[in-house]
Amino acid sequence: MNNLLLIHQARIVEDWIDYNGHLRDAFYFLLFSQATDALMDHIGLDAAGRAQHGHTLYTLEAHINYLSETRLGEQVQVFTQLVDHDIKRLHIVHHLYRPADGQLLAVSEQMLMNIAIEAGRAVRFANPVEERIGHLFESQQSLPRPGYCARVIGIRR
Amino acid sequence: MNNLLLIHQARIVEDWIDYNGHLRDAFYFLLFSQATDALMDHIGLDAAGRAQHGHTLYTLEAHINYLSETRLGEQVQVFTQLVDHDIKRLHIVHHLYRPADGQLLAVSEQMLMNIAIEAGRAVRFANPVEERIGHLFESQQSLPRPGYCARVIGIRR
Repeated sequence: MNNLLLIHQARIVEDWIDYNGHLRDAFYFLLFSQATDALMDHIGLDAAGRAQHGHTLYTLEAHINYLSETRLGEQVQVFTQLVDHDIKRLHIVHHLYRPADGQLLAVSEQMLMNIAIEAGRAVRFANPVEERIGHLFESQQSLPRPGYCARVIGIRR
Repeated sequence: MNNLLLIHQARIVEDWIDYNGHLRDAFYFLLFSQATDALMDHIGLDAAGRAQHGHTLYTLEAHINYLSETRLGEQVQVFTQLVDHDIKRLHIVHHLYRPADGQLLAVSEQMLMNIAIEAGRAVRFANPVEERIGHLFESQQSLPRPGYCARVIGIRR
């Protein structure tokens, strides 16, 4: 996984299983949502940072590709790449893996926006947060652009 | 809403609220996932249909745009448009509305695939399912292509 950031680990629980006996599509997304929470901790937007700066992150847009089924009890990990950023946005790609066999289960490309909580509008990242984002971005500069990005949905004929 | 199909209704419950006091991104997706379940019922892939044909639907890919916050206790509705289909795929767009003020809360474009459960591979829809899909598609022919489709994620400079 090289410099991909291991950001979240979890075990698949019964509440997340659908009538097909697999992890329901929405709960792959919950794992990615929890990974985004962990990414917020990583860049200093944990509960203390949110209170200090009055900022939080909103998900503007998310794309998800489902690659393999996942079952009750399996351990999974989310690795994250920061592919781009500007003064108020993070463009990230989360990868969900099953470490037991190395299978890539799903990929989610997302755009996150820094929001001033009281005003409810987009604002520039606070300085210490911006600094941590810069460090993360630099640490991943050698990584190739991940797959399953810039995807358009449609039936080709 | 004209010929958009009202497919699912729900009330936002406490378990779905995040530290921002709003519906967590993953639970918008759960509402869309439940809407897909209801769409399966609509086209004859309810539990009885799945057992009869040995088929189910998998989500291959989903894109979601977040447009407005949603809070505890609010009533929401999902309206669905079948924008394209072939012999084994459905290209759909779910719209999440708050009927109290008509606010569009989120839009999700998705590609769903018909799967033979035992073989675990993509197969043509069963005849009666194909017929219902055709009826739904024809009933929505007059609708324009919905917004928030064919989206590519990226920071433009």
